[in-house]
Amino acid sequence: MRPSFRIDATDGTARAGTLTLRHGLVPTPVFMPVATRGMVRLVPPATLHELGVSLLLANTYHLALRPGADVVAALGGLSAFTGFGGPMLTDSGGFQVMSLGGTVDDDGVTFRSTYDGRRVRLTPEGVVELEERFGVDIAMVLDVCTMLPAERAALQVAMVRTTEWARRAAAARRDEAQALFGIVQGGSEEDLRREHASQIAEIGFDGYGIGGLAVGESAPATLAAVAAALERLPADRPRYLMGVGDPYLIAHAVELGVDAFDCVAPTRLARHGIALTSQGRLALRPSRWLGSDEPVDPRCGCSTCRTVPRGLVAHLLRVDAHSAGALLSVHNLSFQLGLLRDLRAAIRAGTLAGLVRALDEVWAPSWRSARTEAAPDR
Amino acid sequence: MRPSFRIDATDGTARAGTLTLRHGLVPTPVFMPVATRGMVRLVPPATLHELGVSLLLANTYHLALRPGADVVAALGGLSAFTGFGGPMLTDSGGFQVMSLGGTVDDDGVTFRSTYDGRRVRLTPEGVVELEERFGVDIAMVLDVCTMLPAERAALQVAMVRTTEWARRAAAARRDEAQALFGIVQGGSEEDLRREHASQIAEIGFDGYGIGGLAVGESAPATLAAVAAALERLPADRPRYLMGVGDPYLIAHAVELGVDAFDCVAPTRLARHGIALTSQGRLALRPSRWLGSDEPVDPRCGCSTCRTVPRGLVAHLLRVDAHSAGALLSVHNLSFQLGLLRDLRAAIRAGTLAGLVRALDEVWAPSWRSARTEAAPDR
Repeated sequence: MRPSFRIDATDGTARAGTLTLRHGLVPTPVFMPVATRGMVRLVPPATLHELGVSLLLANTYHLALRPGADVVAALGGLSAFTGFGGPMLTDSGGFQVMSLGGTVDDDGVTFRSTYDGRRVRLTPEGVVELEERFGVDIAMVLDVCTMLPAERAALQVAMVRTTEWARRAAAARRDEAQALFGIVQGGSEEDLRREHASQIAEIGFDGYGIGGLAVGESAPATLAAVAAALERLPADRPRYLMGVGDPYLIAHAVELGVDAFDCVAPTRLARHGIALTSQGRLALRPSRWLGSDEPVDPRCGCSTCRTVPRGLVAHLLRVDAHSAGALLSVHNLSFQLGLLRDLRAAIRAGTLAGLVRALDEVWAPSWRSARTEAAPDR
Repeated sequence: MRPSFRIDATDGTARAGTLTLRHGLVPTPVFMPVATRGMVRLVPPATLHELGVSLLLANTYHLALRPGADVVAALGGLSAFTGFGGPMLTDSGGFQVMSLGGTVDDDGVTFRSTYDGRRVRLTPEGVVELEERFGVDIAMVLDVCTMLPAERAALQVAMVRTTEWARRAAAARRDEAQALFGIVQGGSEEDLRREHASQIAEIGFDGYGIGGLAVGESAPATLAAVAAALERLPADRPRYLMGVGDPYLIAHAVELGVDAFDCVAPTRLARHGIALTSQGRLALRPSRWLGSDEPVDPRCGCSTCRTVPRGLVAHLLRVDAHSAGALLSVHNLSFQLGLLRDLRAAIRAGTLAGLVRALDEVWAPSWRSARTEAAPDR
């Protein structure tokens, strides 16, 4: 069975669709929680099911180092290994290699393992092979990700390599049941995004990642770059804005026509005592919440909001932070999945513009104070 | 409404019963997970419900220091504060004060807070008042707990104080809807246990704790001391063996007529990578499990065993130990609750002796190698 994508409804340039993948169906637009090392931190896979997670991201870099693709393959692939069972996507490891200080040459990247300092080599072909052994539903090609701000020349070098690597990845592919997504780079230069999107689209992939964004640039710059890339990406293929979890960016990117997102922010913020709520971000560490019997978000129906008061969360943040993180991770993921559910429903109902305006009232201000927290920090 | 206890079935000296408490019914014999600081570490209260937890223990010492009884009372009491909602028991704090180095005088104990070094005083009356403000279903009196081995003279001094404090606690009680349990001390000297049980029973409580056991003595000594105490405790009241979680001790204590247990062992062992299984303890850290697609316990139906392979747990123990702890805590609690469910069913069916023999085949050997891990280490 080949993976496929069907658009079920549109509202302006936004689309609601269905990804048909090896391990199941994924309604889009979709948010992927991040199971970096095989598990969303502190959130068992059974809880992901209860939350309605339909697509889960894991990290090629980390899993290739520990426990290794052989182990994962022997246990039946990543969906079985993680206990999630449903559709999974792996990023290529490129982002980690860049952010952790790898050396790029024309053929691939070399880096030292964060676990044992061992010298490791990733090539476009090697990454496809790893991801095929992981048996994931969606594999991302190895790309060259550039931190922003960056010189145009540096962005262009990265684009040339990324395009060449994308060709090699496409040629190396063996497993036709696994979707392979190309990745568009180009920084926040709109013309470069257009140019690179054309190059990657020309190679032909099952879907397209838009990478290297939300890494330090402003929100308008992010969205302009996304819009530029989308102009040159085929409308009948899924488009995935990588590493973006901010509700403001998600809402506007969905409006532009993006179909998928991932970010560690919901669970990372949770572990730092920050809740995502219908009123915006809520820091639960301040002592005033110790006396509060309100739920974390009175408008949320997740198991955390159904059971515990803010007072318990504030208390646990002081005396047992991991337990507080477990409670808030459930809530934040529930919030994020609810956001995407609302966006899908609005597209189907033709009411997306109104929903985006309402979300702006809550989430646009966060860009003034908290921009860095949306960085793709897996 | 006054708390009550009904015996529904007996098998020899063992009993299956029902505790009727302010926040609900508790089938006995019962195992209480330990929510030391208000949450069972890494296990949200919603998960406790799914596991069928009917009675939850929290720690007076820790909660009185942080966040304080005022905060808990203002939020509606401990069942509301913790999000558990169901029946709760608080220990008296006496064990913590002793184990953390408090000073005992005739009137009470003085210690320094583990949080800020502040000098704190606990008296029998003060503890009852704290527990009434917590609004728990079962309050334990303040006792003097003696580490074993101990001189008879030291045990006798502790008994005299514990009896006097029990009288003062009974006199200080205001809330008749809250069950108040006395505590029997006496170390592993059977005659002292008999004598002290008589003293505490004479004061008259809603139920009786058997304290100061599983603190270093052998399993036969524990059970002999339990049997001696039970001889002099009223048969129509619930009897609670404090701080004991070892399946071997639980099975034999149930056979003797004990109705309730608590221990941090299931969740503490989980955080150290040890699973309780139908085949005994299983250490999941060894690298041979990295390649295993078996569930943690093939005979278990908990969400961890239904979803993840041993390979994932072994991997996470290396790279994300808290997530592994979350998975194994669910399993170990499920195992422990299942053990008590099996014991209740066997009492009702009149087949307890056979079940205890079967459990002995798995669990008796653990006393040769792992005795200390059953210590009441909350």
